[in-house]
Amino acid sequence: MAGSTFGNIFKITTWGESHGKGIGVVVDGCPAGLALCEDDIQIYLDRRKPGQSRYSTPRKEEDKVEILSGIFEGKTTGTPISMIVFNKSQRSGDYSEIARLYRPGHADLTYDMKYGFRDYRGGGRSSGRETIGRVAAGAIACKILDQLGIRILTYTRSIGSVAIDESRFDPSVIADNPLYMPDKQAAREAEAFLENCMKKQDSAGGVIECVVKNMKPGIGDPVFEKLSANLGKAILSIGAVKGFEIGDGMAAARATGHTNNDQYTKSADGDTIKLTNHSGGILGGISDGSNIILRAAVKPTPSIGTEQSTITKEGKSIQTSIKGRHDPVIVPRAVVVVESMVAITILDMMFAGINSNMDHLIRFYS
Amino acid sequence: MAGSTFGNIFKITTWGESHGKGIGVVVDGCPAGLALCEDDIQIYLDRRKPGQSRYSTPRKEEDKVEILSGIFEGKTTGTPISMIVFNKSQRSGDYSEIARLYRPGHADLTYDMKYGFRDYRGGGRSSGRETIGRVAAGAIACKILDQLGIRILTYTRSIGSVAIDESRFDPSVIADNPLYMPDKQAAREAEAFLENCMKKQDSAGGVIECVVKNMKPGIGDPVFEKLSANLGKAILSIGAVKGFEIGDGMAAARATGHTNNDQYTKSADGDTIKLTNHSGGILGGISDGSNIILRAAVKPTPSIGTEQSTITKEGKSIQTSIKGRHDPVIVPRAVVVVESMVAITILDMMFAGINSNMDHLIRFYS
Amino acid sequence: MAGSTFGNIFKITTWGESHGKGIGVVVDGCPAGLALCEDDIQIYLDRRKPGQSRYSTPRKEEDKVEILSGIFEGKTTGTPISMIVFNKSQRSGDYSEIARLYRPGHADLTYDMKYGFRDYRGGGRSSGRETIGRVAAGAIACKILDQLGIRILTYTRSIGSVAIDESRFDPSVIADNPLYMPDKQAAREAEAFLENCMKKQDSAGGVIECVVKNMKPGIGDPVFEKLSANLGKAILSIGAVKGFEIGDGMAAARATGHTNNDQYTKSADGDTIKLTNHSGGILGGISDGSNIILRAAVKPTPSIGTEQSTITKEGKSIQTSIKGRHDPVIVPRAVVVVESMVAITILDMMFAGINSNMDHLIRFYS
Amino acid sequence: MAGSTFGNIFKITTWGESHGKGIGVVVDGCPAGLALCEDDIQIYLDRRKPGQSRYSTPRKEEDKVEILSGIFEGKTTGTPISMIVFNKSQRSGDYSEIARLYRPGHADLTYDMKYGFRDYRGGGRSSGRETIGRVAAGAIACKILDQLGIRILTYTRSIGSVAIDESRFDPSVIADNPLYMPDKQAAREAEAFLENCMKKQDSAGGVIECVVKNMKPGIGDPVFEKLSANLGKAILSIGAVKGFEIGDGMAAARATGHTNNDQYTKSADGDTIKLTNHSGGILGGISDGSNIILRAAVKPTPSIGTEQSTITKEGKSIQTSIKGRHDPVIVPRAVVVVESMVAITILDMMFAGINSNMDHLIRFYS
Repeated sequence: MAGSTFGNIFKITTWGESHGKGIGVVVDGCPAGLALCEDDIQIYLDRRKPGQSRYSTPRKEEDKVEILSGIFEGKTTGTPISMIVFNKSQRSGDYSEIARLYRPGHADLTYDMKYGFRDYRGGGRSSGRETIGRVAAGAIACKILDQLGIRILTYTRSIGSVAIDESRFDPSVIADNPLYMPDKQAAREAEAFLENCMKKQDSAGGVIECVVKNMKPGIGDPVFEKLSANLGKAILSIGAVKGFEIGDGMAAARATGHTNNDQYTKSADGDTIKLTNHSGGILGGISDGSNIILRAAVKPTPSIGTEQSTITKEGKSIQTSIKGRHDPVIVPRAVVVVESMVAITILDMMFAGINSNMDHLIRFYS
Repeated sequence: MAGSTFGNIFKITTWGESHGKGIGVVVDGCPAGLALCEDDIQIYLDRRKPGQSRYSTPRKEEDKVEILSGIFEGKTTGTPISMIVFNKSQRSGDYSEIARLYRPGHADLTYDMKYGFRDYRGGGRSSGRETIGRVAAGAIACKILDQLGIRILTYTRSIGSVAIDESRFDPSVIADNPLYMPDKQAAREAEAFLENCMKKQDSAGGVIECVVKNMKPGIGDPVFEKLSANLGKAILSIGAVKGFEIGDGMAAARATGHTNNDQYTKSADGDTIKLTNHSGGILGGISDGSNIILRAAVKPTPSIGTEQSTITKEGKSIQTSIKGRHDPVIVPRAVVVVESMVAITILDMMFAGINSNMDHLIRFYS
Repeated sequence: MAGSTFGNIFKITTWGESHGKGIGVVVDGCPAGLALCEDDIQIYLDRRKPGQSRYSTPRKEEDKVEILSGIFEGKTTGTPISMIVFNKSQRSGDYSEIARLYRPGHADLTYDMKYGFRDYRGGGRSSGRETIGRVAAGAIACKILDQLGIRILTYTRSIGSVAIDESRFDPSVIADNPLYMPDKQAAREAEAFLENCMKKQDSAGGVIECVVKNMKPGIGDPVFEKLSANLGKAILSIGAVKGFEIGDGMAAARATGHTNNDQYTKSADGDTIKLTNHSGGILGGISDGSNIILRAAVKPTPSIGTEQSTITKEGKSIQTSIKGRHDPVIVPRAVVVVESMVAITILDMMFAGINSNMDHLIRFYS
Repeated sequence: MAGSTFGNIFKITTWGESHGKGIGVVVDGCPAGLALCEDDIQIYLDRRKPGQSRYSTPRKEEDKVEILSGIFEGKTTGTPISMIVFNKSQRSGDYSEIARLYRPGHADLTYDMKYGFRDYRGGGRSSGRETIGRVAAGAIACKILDQLGIRILTYTRSIGSVAIDESRFDPSVIADNPLYMPDKQAAREAEAFLENCMKKQDSAGGVIECVVKNMKPGIGDPVFEKLSANLGKAILSIGAVKGFEIGDGMAAARATGHTNNDQYTKSADGDTIKLTNHSGGILGGISDGSNIILRAAVKPTPSIGTEQSTITKEGKSIQTSIKGRHDPVIVPRAVVVVESMVAITILDMMFAGINSNMDHLIRFYS
C-alpha cells in the first residue's frame, strides 16, 4: 500500500530518502487565506536540526525549507502546498559498509525482505530524515490550531532512567536545555546519564510527553476513528516509537475504577470541571475539552559503536560496530516530530466535525 | 467523519447500540472460496460472552450470530458478509438514571458535547456490546490467517497488580481459568485481587498480550502505514484501552542501544535468526517474520458501586453510585477483541502486499 | 478491494444478494438530530418497487424497510443507521438454468472469472436489488439536503429513440406516468415503443436526467475530487449505466468556445448570473450555485426472451432464451437510484467543505 | 477535502500552479524493482508539450522532468517517487487582466466562491499545466502495465463535427498528424475545421477514445468500485471533460437488449469469445479480458479572442476578449492525459486483486 500519506481532509504526503536529492512533503487540504511563509516552517524544522548540542549527531544539516506551491500573495490558496528541503551534506562515501550487512535495530533486513533490495545510503527512506516532511507539515497544522486557540506543549519526560519530577515542572526551561526537559535538575542528571552512555559507545532512549491545551470538545469519532486511536497511529508511525499512552496509559491497568475515574463537579463560575484528568482529555474516543495528554516511548538509537553480531547480505555471520556521526539519543530531536503529528491528527479530525450535528451543519451553510 | 469502518481492502463496518434492535457488522473484501458458517463465528463470540464466571456481568446475553449475506453453498462469494446479533436481554427499565447524569469514566458527557444528545440506554453506541461486530469480523480474519499458516495467541498478562510470571508461562491453561491467564498461580492470585475489588464495590483493569506466530515477513509499509502504527490504532480504538506497546514497549525507553537491539546470527540450519526479539517482530514498520508481540492496557471498568461526584444534564452537582450488573473487570472478555483487531489489521495489510515488488506482481498476474 | 462502501464522511456500505436473506445498508456519518423514521425511507423505496406498471417486472417485491440502529427518540444519533429489507418473494426454483450458463449482458462470466464461482440465484450481488441499499441511504441524504434548501429533480429523458421535448417540459406530470417522463406526449410515445419491444421479446434502454436546484456554490475540490468526477463515479457505479454527461456532455465536444462558454452578467437585482448553463453548474470541478444538470445512459435490460448464443460453464456453445419475469426497461425504476446517488455524493462533498477557508473554519469553531 | 490525491494502492498526489515555481507529483505504491529513468517519463510529457503544431499554444514550455526520489541504482525502491517540472517560460505580466474579471468557461468565479480569492496567474491550480503531474505518473503506470502485457492505445476520435471513419482506422498514422487521429483523411478535414475556428478567434472541442488491449479479466469490484465507475471518475477529473462513455456509451440507451448484448461463442481454438463488444470489456463493473473501450468528450478551449460578456470582481458588467497564446483545441494534447489516467486507474484496481480469491491468496503467500 502507499504508506506515505497521512490524514483524510488535512492530508500530507511525504517523500525522500536520506541520501537522495531532497526530502519533501505535499500538504493538501490546508484552508485558504492562512498567512504563511517559509519562516513559519523553518522555526519548526530548526527544532529537529542536528548539531545543536553534543547529544545529537555532529552532521551539519542546514535543512532550509523552500515552498514550491500553494501560496499566493503571502496566503495559502487552498491548493496543495509543496515543500522541499534539499539534501546537502550527505557524503555517499560514509555508508558503503551498510550495503553488505544488516544493522541490528535498523530496517535494513525488513526492507530487503519486502522490496528485494534497498537504498542503503543512510537508511534510505527509513532514515530519521523522513521526519522533515512531517515537521514541515506540522508547522502549518500548528499555525492553524493556534488561530483556533489551541496550543500544544511537547517536551522530554525522561531519558533512560532519568525522569522529570512533576514538582519541578517548568515549561519555561524547556528551550534552555539541549534535552528539551521542563525540569532543569532532571536535564542535568540526564546529561550525566548520556555522557556515560557515550563513553561506552552506547545510546539511550526516553519518553516524550505532549499536552494539548484549550482543546475543543467533541473532536474524535466513535468506534474506529477515536481521537485516541488516531493519535496512537500518528505517534506509532514515527520511527523508533515502541509505546503509546493516553492519559494514565499503562498505569491505568493497575488502577481501580475508583482511582481512575475522573469525577465531575462545578467550578466557581458554574462550568463543568473534572477533579482529575486520568483519561487524558478523551472519553469514548471523543475530546471533552480538557487537556489532551499523551506519551511516546522512543527506543535507543540503534546505531552504536559497540560490537554486535549480525549477518551479511550473503548470509555470513560477522561482528560489526557502527561507525559514523550518530545521535547518542534521538529523543530531543523527536520532540517536535511528536508535536507535529499530534497537530496534524487533531486538525484533520476537527475538519470532519461538521457532519456530527444538524444544527452545526445548518448554521455553517446558511 | 464516519467512524465505524476499519480497514482498506479487508474492510469492516460495524453498527448497533447496546439497547437497539441488534448489533452487526458488514465484512467486505473477504476472499471468495472460504468455507464459512455461523459456528466459525459463534466460537469467537462465545469467548466474549458475559456470565461465564463471577468476574463478568451476570447479564444473560446469548449473542447468537446470524449470517445474512455473502455465503453461497457454504463458501464466501467475495461479496459483503453481513452478520447480526439481535439484542435480546436488554431491559430498558435498568438505565433510566443514566439519562439525567454523566457517569464518570463513561462517554456520556462527550457524546452529548458532540451530538447534542445521546442514546443513554446502556451506553448506546459506546457500550462494550459494540465489540460484537469486531469479534464476528475477527473470526473470519483469523480463519483466513489460519489457512495461510499464521496463528494468534492472546491472553491476560496482568489484572491490577497481579502479573503472570514468564517462568510459569503455559498457554494450555489459558482456557482453563476465567481470567484467560497463561499462568495458573497468577490466575488464582488475580481472582483473590478481584474478590477484594468486588467487596469494595470497585473494579480492576489489566494488560492483554498478543503474540502472532508464523508471521509472514515484509508486511507493513514505511512511514505512516507501519504495521506497528496500524496495530496501535486498531487496539487503541477498543474502548477502555489507554496504552499500547509493541515489543518491549515503554520499557524500550529505559534500555540502551546495546540491550535493545536484536542481534542477528545463523541458526544451525542456516536461517537468519535474531538472538532476542525486543522489537516485537517489526522493524521500520515492516514485519521480519519473527513473532509479533504487543500489549494493550485496559482501564478498570468505570461502572462502580461506590459513590462518585458528578453533574446532571441540567448542571447540578450530585453524588451517584452506579447500580446494575457490571463487570468488575473487562480484561478477560476483551482478550478476544484484541485478537480480532490484530487479525483484521494484519490481514488487511497483507492484502496490499502485491504492489511491493515487480517480481511478485508479474508472478501473480501470469 | 472492498467495493461496497461509498463516500468519505457521509459513508454508506451496502450488502445483500438477490436471493439471500435480505438487502441492507449501513449509513455512517449522518449528522445527529435529524428527525427520521421508516416512512421517510419507504417513500423512496416505493419509487423503485417493481410491479407498478406493465413496464416493470410483475414480481411482487414488497421491500419494506426496517431501521435497526442509529435512531433514538425519533432522531438520528450520529452513529450508524443500519437498514434492512428482507427478501420475501424470491423463488429459488426460478433460477436453476442460470447456474450452468453465462447470460449475455449479465455479470455471470466476469463474476466467475474474478471469484471462481458465483451465487447464480437472480444475479446474486450483481442483481438490481443491490440498489435498495443505495435508495434507502439516498432518502436520508435527500432529507438532509432538503433541510439545507437543496432540491433534486430526476426523471426519464428518453426511452429508446423517444425523447422528451423541452418545449413540453412539465415536472408536475412525472409521477403521473409509469415512465417518469416530464412530458405526457413523449411518455405515450415511449409506451408505444415499449409495447413493440415487448412483443418482440426484446428490451429497451434510455436516458435519465437529474437537476439539482438551489445548489450551494463552492462544493467540489480541484483536480481529482471534482464534483463532476465524483458524480460521474456515483452514476457509473449503477449497474447498466454506460454513459455519463454533465451539462452539455458529449455535445460539448461538437460546440465551439463561443457557443459553449456561459457568459456572465448582472441580474435586475444585482446578482451575478449566467446567460446559459452549458457547464451544468460546475466549473473547474466546483459548483457555481446554478443548477447542476447531469444525465445517465442506461443500457437495455439484458434479460430478453429472444434466442441468444452463449456458452455453458463447461464451455459448450448453446442457444438460450431467458425466461422469467423481467423488466422490459429498467429506466423508470432507476430514476430514484440516480437521484439517490447524486444526493449522497453532493452531501458527502459538502461535509468536507469546512477546510476550504480559514474564515469559515474560525467561524465554525468559535 | 484534499483533492489532489488519486488512487488507493498506486497513489498519486499532484501539486503546483501554472505560474508557481513548478508542477510536480508524488507517486506512492510503485512496486520495487522497476527499471526507471527520466527518459521513460519525458517521452510521455513530450506528447502533451505545447508548441508542436499550429493547433496548440505557441508558448514554449520545455517541461523537463526531474526525478527527486524513489530510484536507486536505476530501479524503483518501492518508496515514493517524487517528480518535478520547473516552470520556466511563465511571464507574469501576461495575466494582469484576469485578476479583475471572471473569464467565461474558466474556474475563476468558482475558485473565488470556494476559497475567497485565487491565484489568477494563468489559471493557477485550475490550469491545464496541472496535468503534467498526471502524465508523469501515468508514464510509470504504463510501463508497469506493459510489463504485465497490457497495452493502451489512445487517440482523437473527433474534433468538432469531424470524426474518424472506422473503415479508415489506422493506428500507425496517429503520431503522424498533429491531431493524433488514426485516420489521415479525417485529420486533414479536422485541420481545415480548426483553421476556420482560428480565423473566427473561436475554439473547438472533440472526443478522445482509448482502447486497453490484452486486459486481464477479473479487474474491478462490484457495486461502487466498478472498473467503469473508477475509469469514469479518472477521466471526468480531467479539466474540460464533460462526458464519459464506456463501450457503446450514450448510444446504448437507444439500443435494444438484442442489439446491445454481447453474445458468447467458442473460438476455433476453444476459447470463449464475444461476438461483439458493446459493453467495452466490462460487465457488472468487472473486466472480461476483452478490450476496454472508453471515450471522453472534451469541451472547446474557453479562452477565445471573440468578445464575451462577463463581470469584474467588483461586480461590474463588462465585455472582454481573451488575449494571449491559447490552444485553439486542447484535444490532441489531452490524449496522453486520458491514457495516463486510464493506466493509473487500471493499475490501482489490479493491485487490490489479491483479496478476491482464497486460491490466489494462498498461492501468493506460499
